Amino acid sequence: MSAVWGNKLKLTIFGESHSAAIGVVIDGLPAGVSLDTAEIQREMARRAPNGGEFSTPRKEGDEPEILSGYFEGKTTGTPLCAVIKNTNTKSADYEQFKHIFRPGHSDYGYFLKSGGNNDYRGGGHSSGRLTAPIVFAGAICKQLLREKGIEIGAHIAAVADIEDGRFDTDIRKETLTALTHKAFPLLDEEKFASMRERIALAKSEGDSVGGIIECAVVGLKGGVGEPFFDSIESRLAGLLFSVPAVKGVQFGKGYEFAKMKGSEANDAFRYKDGKIVTDTNNNGGILGGISTGMPIVFDVAIKPTASIFKEQDSVDIATGENAKLTIKGRHDSCIAVRAVPVVEAAAAIAIFDLIG
Amino acid sequence: MSAVWGNKLKLTIFGESHSAAIGVVIDGLPAGVSLDTAEIQREMARRAPNGGEFSTPRKEGDEPEILSGYFEGKTTGTPLCAVIKNTNTKSADYEQFKHIFRPGHSDYGYFLKSGGNNDYRGGGHSSGRLTAPIVFAGAICKQLLREKGIEIGAHIAAVADIEDGRFDTDIRKETLTALTHKAFPLLDEEKFASMRERIALAKSEGDSVGGIIECAVVGLKGGVGEPFFDSIESRLAGLLFSVPAVKGVQFGKGYEFAKMKGSEANDAFRYKDGKIVTDTNNNGGILGGISTGMPIVFDVAIKPTASIFKEQDSVDIATGENAKLTIKGRHDSCIAVRAVPVVEAAAAIAIFDLIG
Amino acid sequence: MSAVWGNKLKLTIFGESHSAAIGVVIDGLPAGVSLDTAEIQREMARRAPNGGEFSTPRKEGDEPEILSGYFEGKTTGTPLCAVIKNTNTKSADYEQFKHIFRPGHSDYGYFLKSGGNNDYRGGGHSSGRLTAPIVFAGAICKQLLREKGIEIGAHIAAVADIEDGRFDTDIRKETLTALTHKAFPLLDEEKFASMRERIALAKSEGDSVGGIIECAVVGLKGGVGEPFFDSIESRLAGLLFSVPAVKGVQFGKGYEFAKMKGSEANDAFRYKDGKIVTDTNNNGGILGGISTGMPIVFDVAIKPTASIFKEQDSVDIATGENAKLTIKGRHDSCIAVRAVPVVEAAAAIAIFDLIG
Amino acid sequence: MSAVWGNKLKLTIFGESHSAAIGVVIDGLPAGVSLDTAEIQREMARRAPNGGEFSTPRKEGDEPEILSGYFEGKTTGTPLCAVIKNTNTKSADYEQFKHIFRPGHSDYGYFLKSGGNNDYRGGGHSSGRLTAPIVFAGAICKQLLREKGIEIGAHIAAVADIEDGRFDTDIRKETLTALTHKAFPLLDEEKFASMRERIALAKSEGDSVGGIIECAVVGLKGGVGEPFFDSIESRLAGLLFSVPAVKGVQFGKGYEFAKMKGSEANDAFRYKDGKIVTDTNNNGGILGGISTGMPIVFDVAIKPTASIFKEQDSVDIATGENAKLTIKGRHDSCIAVRAVPVVEAAAAIAIFDLIG
Repeated sequence: MSAVWGNKLKLTIFGESHSAAIGVVIDGLPAGVSLDTAEIQREMARRAPNGGEFSTPRKEGDEPEILSGYFEGKTTGTPLCAVIKNTNTKSADYEQFKHIFRPGHSDYGYFLKSGGNNDYRGGGHSSGRLTAPIVFAGAICKQLLREKGIEIGAHIAAVADIEDGRFDTDIRKETLTALTHKAFPLLDEEKFASMRERIALAKSEGDSVGGIIECAVVGLKGGVGEPFFDSIESRLAGLLFSVPAVKGVQFGKGYEFAKMKGSEANDAFRYKDGKIVTDTNNNGGILGGISTGMPIVFDVAIKPTASIFKEQDSVDIATGENAKLTIKGRHDSCIAVRAVPVVEAAAAIAIFDLIG
Repeated sequence: MSAVWGNKLKLTIFGESHSAAIGVVIDGLPAGVSLDTAEIQREMARRAPNGGEFSTPRKEGDEPEILSGYFEGKTTGTPLCAVIKNTNTKSADYEQFKHIFRPGHSDYGYFLKSGGNNDYRGGGHSSGRLTAPIVFAGAICKQLLREKGIEIGAHIAAVADIEDGRFDTDIRKETLTALTHKAFPLLDEEKFASMRERIALAKSEGDSVGGIIECAVVGLKGGVGEPFFDSIESRLAGLLFSVPAVKGVQFGKGYEFAKMKGSEANDAFRYKDGKIVTDTNNNGGILGGISTGMPIVFDVAIKPTASIFKEQDSVDIATGENAKLTIKGRHDSCIAVRAVPVVEAAAAIAIFDLIG
Repeated sequence: MSAVWGNKLKLTIFGESHSAAIGVVIDGLPAGVSLDTAEIQREMARRAPNGGEFSTPRKEGDEPEILSGYFEGKTTGTPLCAVIKNTNTKSADYEQFKHIFRPGHSDYGYFLKSGGNNDYRGGGHSSGRLTAPIVFAGAICKQLLREKGIEIGAHIAAVADIEDGRFDTDIRKETLTALTHKAFPLLDEEKFASMRERIALAKSEGDSVGGIIECAVVGLKGGVGEPFFDSIESRLAGLLFSVPAVKGVQFGKGYEFAKMKGSEANDAFRYKDGKIVTDTNNNGGILGGISTGMPIVFDVAIKPTASIFKEQDSVDIATGENAKLTIKGRHDSCIAVRAVPVVEAAAAIAIFDLIG
Repeated sequence: MSAVWGNKLKLTIFGESHSAAIGVVIDGLPAGVSLDTAEIQREMARRAPNGGEFSTPRKEGDEPEILSGYFEGKTTGTPLCAVIKNTNTKSADYEQFKHIFRPGHSDYGYFLKSGGNNDYRGGGHSSGRLTAPIVFAGAICKQLLREKGIEIGAHIAAVADIEDGRFDTDIRKETLTALTHKAFPLLDEEKFASMRERIALAKSEGDSVGGIIECAVVGLKGGVGEPFFDSIESRLAGLLFSVPAVKGVQFGKGYEFAKMKGSEANDAFRYKDGKIVTDTNNNGGILGGISTGMPIVFDVAIKPTASIFKEQDSVDIATGENAKLTIKGRHDSCIAVRAVPVVEAAAAIAIFDLIG
């Protein structure tokens, strides 16, 4: 499969960080939908490097051009292809990585995989830049889900050891929508100052810092998903682990479950206003792989940006010896910030693929 | 897809806890392989309820019968179907769950999904019993991987708040093999007594307890996997989250990455005996979705068994009112113990599917 | 994919002619359907060798046993597995085919493919016997399609050079249903005597004869299918060419189109009783891969049974020399007769997979 | 699946006749291959309308622009996307087809399928223009197959009732290569004059004419393919029926088999120069879905171009009444000529997908 994902929706992504363009083909969209292009562009901008405080100084317009599947302002139901030109590329920055592999990056693996034919510039096809088409596709899926009453939003649950609050059992759609409009989405705004300081400190040291992103999906009806291979957890996690830097995914209480008793972990079913709900939502809205109708809640661990400016140990395959490496270029000190819309996009795509 | 998984290998599972049989069809096996049936049976026995200390008192023989794809003691390369009869079933135990949903189980979701036509006995198709065919397929994949120099093993990294040690950076295949021969696999045997006590306590309270399983894959060459949708993390996590009770998956340092700096998280490449390795293995052998040649290391969070014997709150759809529920029957107090071979099996299947 | 087929429905077949059993897993069925088991058995009987005039003298009960996905007389929506035991097997008949390949059969190809590990008895996994699970799945799909107003039926359009009539432009569902109840389905019953005689002649010569089967699908609404890879023609033909002995597939006028002018070939659209129809149906209900609402009409060419009783030239890989081969055993003189329900089943599966 | 095809190779096509561009993403290519771009362009030119005698007067450059997956003159093994701009479009020609459906085209079906949101200009996504990306992908597959000793070529086996010769049992690769360099590929050049005349006649009448294309694949080793769903016939036919205007596909003797006896149809195996071959190749190199090592031989029936200039009967959904329709624009009188490289391309893609 590699670059193709989905069952009801087929997503194909392509491109390298420094190729002519990156892009996506989305197959399986309904016909007759007027895309909210302003909203798509807003989502793209959330992810795009903007030279701002929490972003690499590199700026990329990330204007998707729709080549197909869209006619007279509506989807036609045929494959929709969108491309984003790669304009602001400084390939010279990457020459040394042809033979000295960057720690924490896929350079070495891709070198092996391709027999040395990988496009090493900016990580090539492994580049975080490939999340732009994912955000594009996610923005469309978000719109389609919204029309079905489903809302998705995420916040920065942690930067290093500084933690934001966590979603309550009862999550309002308005909360999620509001989060998607924040530059630095937090539930508890008072944490902003210390997180900002923590990121600035890492930056000043030429280093980077990791984080956690918590995401919720509200409005998904119960009875969606499968018990095994297409459990909601499987489908979501499969796509979430496609997002570069994600190294952990947990649903509901996740790793806390290990320390809980069954009597604490189980969510009791209750009738509430004639509807079946659970009192708690420790399971993050998913039981046996199938939705319960409660909010889907999960978080992902984001490792610190691998590109740091401190000198690092590596190997040089040109000489066959150990070597020192210093990365220049333009990189984020905390990639978790820009990863928020990507995580939401992945969730939107996975959920839309489940319900079609 | 639902009950079909894989690219190079196609795995189809079927069956319900109380249907005539459960089973699996494995398509894509190489021809001419003599299966080590004793080893397969040993793996099946690791998962099977055996009436032992850490298992439900229910005993199931779990003897797989191969119906096809096997001729004169060798695989033919055609679909290999194995069925396991369901013999020791006490369906009467489950009558009440037709209308009173068990907290922590998929009963309610499946009820919605199937319009009330689900086989509610023992969780039906959602039953942990369906992991038997997964272990069967995993045992075959383990054998095939072993022939390629790849070994897989796991241990119980935690029961409640009692933690076993963790794999070192350098993991020996012998260590993994030894773990697969232990009834209660631990790296640090001294933790056994307290874990055993902790499980016994839960049992005595009619309650259950969660845990963590850490697994390693040694011998996978570098350059395997894809940067996005078929990242090794995506493929492994997709299958691991198919295993009932798994609510979290992390690779290498996983959630610890959130608190690390890039300079701490990056694994420096080094030449060692003419081979490229990394000094540390924080990334669990995977960078940018692609293997580095270092051991693949991940763990999974297992929630406490949902079936507990304490009275619980639920709803009764027959009456449309809240109800009390008391589960009888035979259940594990810490499902993490029997989940160890299942996690290994899922890993074996996912890795074999990647390299074919 | 090999032994797995479908998008909305996933069909997995398994088994060899002389393995313990053959079978099928059908994933993606709706929940809550009471299967018409008598009708399924009737379809199975149409295909099964029955010792009758147009069949091999070998008799096989072909009683499918449902192992899963069926509860209290209804589908549960989970994978439905059915197995058919192989009881009446005379493996000794096939010993020589281990090293002397039967002309017209896959023996040699499978030998190469499996490195000599194929189950050569009765054609192994290539056996026409594997069409029994296809007929089983087809019978279920037929029932599901019938509930959507879609009927499928076929007739023997030719045996050798003796031709039956052809479907009219306007095909009544009753006609199709009636065909499925005939032992030797013809539109023009007067052709029966000469066809029967032609088959008897081949039999008396130890030879076999080919034929053509024409099939129609009535009631499929317009707008189904895709213009390229999932054109209705592609989906149907892909599955029809899975049926052993099928060597040609054509839709509507098929090969006659080569000699037609566009002005003759085009089907004019017309309003009729407020509905859009076409005057003619040269295109067999499919334009640009998409249904028009007219009957889907196609036929398949069936080659003469490869197993004949005349002495044939072949090679003996045991000696590495040319050899003579005489096939004994029990075989059909005109496999086209028993292939009729298989073609209908393939059509039913493909159409159900398209509309889900 | 719809616009995605393949197992080892994943092909995604996109675009409409009059959208900004059409294109293809090819995933699964090996890394390190220098593409023969001149050869690719030559193949593109074979298909492209060139204003020549057998083509629509419309000219299209059809210059593919590679956006990704290609670095320093070599494939990187990542998804290769190529786009072809749509420049020479006269959308005004198509206005009336928004409400008056062209007979023989998918207009009506697509209208139903998309709820009236289809891009009706030039057939939209159903346009024969979408075969350009298929030829592009096919040219790459041809190159890759050539490196494995496999050659593909086709000829115009019939135009109307004028027949070219047919491939012999023993097909030389040079013959196939030579065919791919002819503007009007024939085995028997003496048929050219009458075929040309026949096409000119149709053109002068504002009409069109059908044909047959015969194609061969030489050099494919035995043992490739599967007995059922992935039979070589299934894979090839599935893709061949994706080609617009293809209404029939047959392998080897195809429909002639219906009139043959088994003793005539079976291809006797023989040792020849120490290699196993068959004396005849009635089965077109495929037995039981698996290759025998003999040339793969098949042909396809091409219906006459649906766009003719004679007045035709149709319906007008704007008025809800029957209507007359006259097509203007630029169209081929015998699309079979330009379909030759498309058929070869489809064969190349399907065969490469089988052997990877």
